[in-house]
Amino acid sequence: MKDTNPDIKYLFEPRSVAVVGASQDKDKIGYKILENIYLGGYTGKIYPVNPKGGEIMGLPVYQKIEDINDTLDMAVICIPGKFVADAVKSCAKKRVKFLPIISSGFSEVGNIEEEKKLITYARSHGMRVLGPNIFGIYSAVTSLNSTFGPRNILRGNVAIVTQSGALGASMVGKTAVERIGLSAIVSVGNKADIDEADLLEYLIQSDSTKVVLMYIEGVKGGERLVDVLKTATRVKPIVVIKSGRSKRGAMAAASHTGSLAGQDEIFDAIMRQCGVLRAESLQEAFNWCKFLADTPLPPGEDTIIITNGGGLGVMATDACEKYGVNLYDDAPLLKEVFSRVTPDFGSTKNPVDLTGQATPQTYESALRAALENGNIDSVIALYCETAVFDLNALSLIIEESSKKYREAQKPVLFSLLGGATTETVIDSLKGKGITVYSDVYECVSCLGALYSYCHSSLEERGSPPEFPVDCASIEEIIARARKEGRFFLLSHEAREVMKAAQIQTPQSFIARNLDEAVNYSEEIGYPVVVKVVSKDIIHKSDVGGVALDLDNKAEVINAYEAILYNCRKNSPRAVIEGVEVVEMVKSGTETIVGARRDQSFGPVVMFGLGGIYVEVMKDVSFRAYPLNRKEALTMMKETRSYPLLLGVRGEEKKDIESVVDVIVKLGALIYTLKSVSDIEINPLVALEGKGVKAVDVRILLSKEVT
Amino acid sequence: MKDTNPDIKYLFEPRSVAVVGASQDKDKIGYKILENIYLGGYTGKIYPVNPKGGEIMGLPVYQKIEDINDTLDMAVICIPGKFVADAVKSCAKKRVKFLPIISSGFSEVGNIEEEKKLITYARSHGMRVLGPNIFGIYSAVTSLNSTFGPRNILRGNVAIVTQSGALGASMVGKTAVERIGLSAIVSVGNKADIDEADLLEYLIQSDSTKVVLMYIEGVKGGERLVDVLKTATRVKPIVVIKSGRSKRGAMAAASHTGSLAGQDEIFDAIMRQCGVLRAESLQEAFNWCKFLADTPLPPGEDTIIITNGGGLGVMATDACEKYGVNLYDDAPLLKEVFSRVTPDFGSTKNPVDLTGQATPQTYESALRAALENGNIDSVIALYCETAVFDLNALSLIIEESSKKYREAQKPVLFSLLGGATTETVIDSLKGKGITVYSDVYECVSCLGALYSYCHSSLEERGSPPEFPVDCASIEEIIARARKEGRFFLLSHEAREVMKAAQIQTPQSFIARNLDEAVNYSEEIGYPVVVKVVSKDIIHKSDVGGVALDLDNKAEVINAYEAILYNCRKNSPRAVIEGVEVVEMVKSGTETIVGARRDQSFGPVVMFGLGGIYVEVMKDVSFRAYPLNRKEALTMMKETRSYPLLLGVRGEEKKDIESVVDVIVKLGALIYTLKSVSDIEINPLVALEGKGVKAVDVRILLSKEVT
Repeated sequence: MKDTNPDIKYLFEPRSVAVVGASQDKDKIGYKILENIYLGGYTGKIYPVNPKGGEIMGLPVYQKIEDINDTLDMAVICIPGKFVADAVKSCAKKRVKFLPIISSGFSEVGNIEEEKKLITYARSHGMRVLGPNIFGIYSAVTSLNSTFGPRNILRGNVAIVTQSGALGASMVGKTAVERIGLSAIVSVGNKADIDEADLLEYLIQSDSTKVVLMYIEGVKGGERLVDVLKTATRVKPIVVIKSGRSKRGAMAAASHTGSLAGQDEIFDAIMRQCGVLRAESLQEAFNWCKFLADTPLPPGEDTIIITNGGGLGVMATDACEKYGVNLYDDAPLLKEVFSRVTPDFGSTKNPVDLTGQATPQTYESALRAALENGNIDSVIALYCETAVFDLNALSLIIEESSKKYREAQKPVLFSLLGGATTETVIDSLKGKGITVYSDVYECVSCLGALYSYCHSSLEERGSPPEFPVDCASIEEIIARARKEGRFFLLSHEAREVMKAAQIQTPQSFIARNLDEAVNYSEEIGYPVVVKVVSKDIIHKSDVGGVALDLDNKAEVINAYEAILYNCRKNSPRAVIEGVEVVEMVKSGTETIVGARRDQSFGPVVMFGLGGIYVEVMKDVSFRAYPLNRKEALTMMKETRSYPLLLGVRGEEKKDIESVVDVIVKLGALIYTLKSVSDIEINPLVALEGKGVKAVDVRILLSKEVT
Repeated sequence: MKDTNPDIKYLFEPRSVAVVGASQDKDKIGYKILENIYLGGYTGKIYPVNPKGGEIMGLPVYQKIEDINDTLDMAVICIPGKFVADAVKSCAKKRVKFLPIISSGFSEVGNIEEEKKLITYARSHGMRVLGPNIFGIYSAVTSLNSTFGPRNILRGNVAIVTQSGALGASMVGKTAVERIGLSAIVSVGNKADIDEADLLEYLIQSDSTKVVLMYIEGVKGGERLVDVLKTATRVKPIVVIKSGRSKRGAMAAASHTGSLAGQDEIFDAIMRQCGVLRAESLQEAFNWCKFLADTPLPPGEDTIIITNGGGLGVMATDACEKYGVNLYDDAPLLKEVFSRVTPDFGSTKNPVDLTGQATPQTYESALRAALENGNIDSVIALYCETAVFDLNALSLIIEESSKKYREAQKPVLFSLLGGATTETVIDSLKGKGITVYSDVYECVSCLGALYSYCHSSLEERGSPPEFPVDCASIEEIIARARKEGRFFLLSHEAREVMKAAQIQTPQSFIARNLDEAVNYSEEIGYPVVVKVVSKDIIHKSDVGGVALDLDNKAEVINAYEAILYNCRKNSPRAVIEGVEVVEMVKSGTETIVGARRDQSFGPVVMFGLGGIYVEVMKDVSFRAYPLNRKEALTMMKETRSYPLLLGVRGEEKKDIESVVDVIVKLGALIYTLKSVSDIEINPLVALEGKGVKAVDVRILLSKEVT
């Protein structure tokens, strides 16, 4: 079926569009959409469809889709939900490629089955559906505005993909106010078929789009999204706003759309992994998009701040630390470059303080000096209103230097603080397409986003290393458990899985009697742990069935007898098969490594330091699989307790590389074995020197067999 | 001298002002200031002073201050720095009360001594100095604008205190643009005499000031500031911006002003303790001030969100969690209140979703319903632009309901998202003094600030409990150490201090020989620790002078001999006085409690969980002393590892109350004993059940004897 998929290009660049539900009634969406397409200057052919026939805006109206004597790339469907299925059938006859379904009344109100049937039908007839429950699609290439939102959309190079139609419509207006031009805006609505990943495949290679902004409430098909995002961010910046960050917000999001908002920490970590810039508020997202769309990538990171007020300079410095902007620090060079333009009581250190005496010419000289110096990559220029200062002259300088800096591929950002005159200058520059900020944090945050993008686009995102895993034997173990109606593996089964994946576990033997117990203990070497083995005893510690830290033969003998006595007393009906003698792992640091199949993102791996760090401090980090060793290490470093693995208080460094191996291996297991839903090693002891030991392993199986 | 201090009232409400350095030259600050005072409509008498005499703006100019035949409440000094000292002497002859010194060239450029002399002279002649190095003071009560900033200042009820003059001048303009009216703006410059605490004493009781905004770069005299802030925030909200948050920013701040920026974590914690709202950026501070000045305090915290777009509602929900706004959750009541105004496919849950079909009338009904319901305390109303919606009608509704809500003491906030029409409505409402936001995070952040203020103003901030401390014996110990030229106490001295403060330490005895060591061990009870006692051995562990965890007599004997052997071998010249036998504290949780004299804030206490939590995770919290038990507990709860004290993994709860005691006691010690600079107990073991043990105590003495 994949082969029959129409090229996504025709969603953005259709040569012909039918409007199914086109209306004479100006209050109806069917009129509004036709009007937007027609008056919006769409370059292709337009076919209104309505059983009533006649003419709308001078265009002949077709009574049926089938009557149109042309191939149709797109049919926009804006009729009541109950008539949609029939319309889709008609479209199939005409082999329409794309069906944006504006109509609502599907999964968002619980009609999940109907929606599924619709999509299955469409897909099996080579058609793809956008929506349903959308406000339409706008694409600048063909000047197609098939939305019921505002007609005149400011053209530019930011593409918006939005899960909320209402938000999309108001973003059209808001972006225009903010002077952010759009190359496309697509409402994905219920995402029953076409999703963000599909759209990105077009947007990545579209020259008219420089930045993509996505508003997401919930993720479906996250595995493919991750894959596409990783590629997309290599090519252009992607900014995401994900609402439902808070627990309560996620609940609200789930009730508001058809999709489930994933756990926010996981979403956040995976976006970072993909190199996506996540904005918190719409305003922040707009600021970033505008700046990223306008600004060439700088060759390096050395930034300087120029200011006429120390206070503003200090605040900008704080903001640089917050947003990860690197301030240039070569004092002799800075002195050489800026001493000519800075009075003695100013400062040539970074921030460069031109002092309150600075004139527009001082700024001009300082900006020129910075532009000409190859060691300086970006400039943040701040101004706070002073009594005698020719702001119009500064405005001209800003205009000119913006141009020159752009040519030199150096970002330059201006932030001006002051009264009405200052605001007028800011507005007039904005009108000319030059971004000037009125708050230093807003200003620096944009440069931070740019550098964050630069970093991530340089990061290696290769495939995961391959490890030899004996999948056949694991499948066998799982099959056995399933046969017994279990959705979890017993501890010895879990250990076998570890063996198949070549993850070391503590040595362990089942002893049928005391002699064997002693022999095995000697073989393993002390100290050892002895545990009862019985299918009838689940909570071994509770019945006195476990003895830890046995240091010699005598202690093993005592423990063996005590365990048998306890178990017979506390669980008189239990069949005791013997005891397990296990190597006791004493040195090293306890970590927790897990992998599970996330509802939104598929295979996800997790790392944390064991015990209290996870339980009390919730100090864990996540990534989507596939991931390479470097990504796994980055993930480990994100935990606050990571330094403990490096060795503190004179301890030796732990075997971090082996933990990385285990993370990637567990990811691969979950990825490969569809019948496993969760694997958790807790603790995975990272030893001093070399190696790890998976002390306790929990493996859960999927409820739905795949 | 305190008695001769003039009433701070006359700084804000002077009846007469001399301008020393008044100038004919329009480019000079001396002209600008006189012009601002004269044309600004100052209600008192104005006396320009300049040796040249003559007239400026029709006002007769006095050649000398002494020539003025009137009592002077204020003399604004705006002459070159080198002439300031003489002018101050002349002012003394006229018994001027307040001297705002505009002139620069003092401690900010290193002339610390000159500044000190100036202040000493002024103070000893009953005068107080504002500055030097300031841009002036504006006070609405007497319409006094003695700054060289903009002339027309928008009147209102926000007072600004700023350490940066340049920033102050531009804030005058910016606040006007943001429609924030000012009751006063005071530049404190070098803070050589008058500081924030002095100014707050006036501003607290001034009816025309509802909110105080402070821009701080560095704190001087923090002890008094804390004291005044604690009182002030009971009466009105105080918003602080402290630049130099980042390490680098703090460096920049220190180079830019004369004062040292304190460690940011401490500043932050103490502001929280004082109930001060700390804003990050200027924009955030302005938003808060405007809202707080305009909004009555609500009786309760139950907030609802009303929206016409689910997406906006979800984002506002996220923002509520971030900013600590409590969403109301009584589903049946919400249904009862809002079902009439919400379509079936909307939601009466919080956020209340009126859906895209909402009309202005729907908003009106919903807002009225919320206003009338006694269970709802605050409302956040969101709108995102839809195709057919009468925005002007909504604008009227916003205007009206803002009024009604204000009368009912319920905060209501509106946030509108859309294009040019929406922005026009926002601007026109702003023009009428009604705050409407265009970003939900900005909107919710303001409500969060209001509730944060409500919380803190309710918090108990009583005096610390008193503990019996034997100060005399501690002073004796300190005197002895000083005599020996030491700036630290030896461990047994530190233990004596603990005893005097009634903080339990592990039992310990000095044994002169093996017999004594064994006897003491038996007396204490096993296990014990044995350590060498020698003034010549500082790092005892390094020479093998410590043995831990000795379980019985035999082990003590072995350890004793081993220690003597090791020490003689490794430190052959050391005089060994014996060994110390110490109780070994095994159970319980290690914490760290400290107190020190902070450069900015004076006595400061610190708490953290011991060992790795402090070393690796930097998980500590701070407060200023005096603090009461509740504040100490709040401080403990701020650490992420606090739950460990509550008992995890089946452990018993630790004696938290006793830790609280120790925190308050250490604070009191540092507060009382001026000669002690640092006390740190690490670890202080919090036992299960009852009690704590101060295992290791470090006490440092001040270098300057006071």
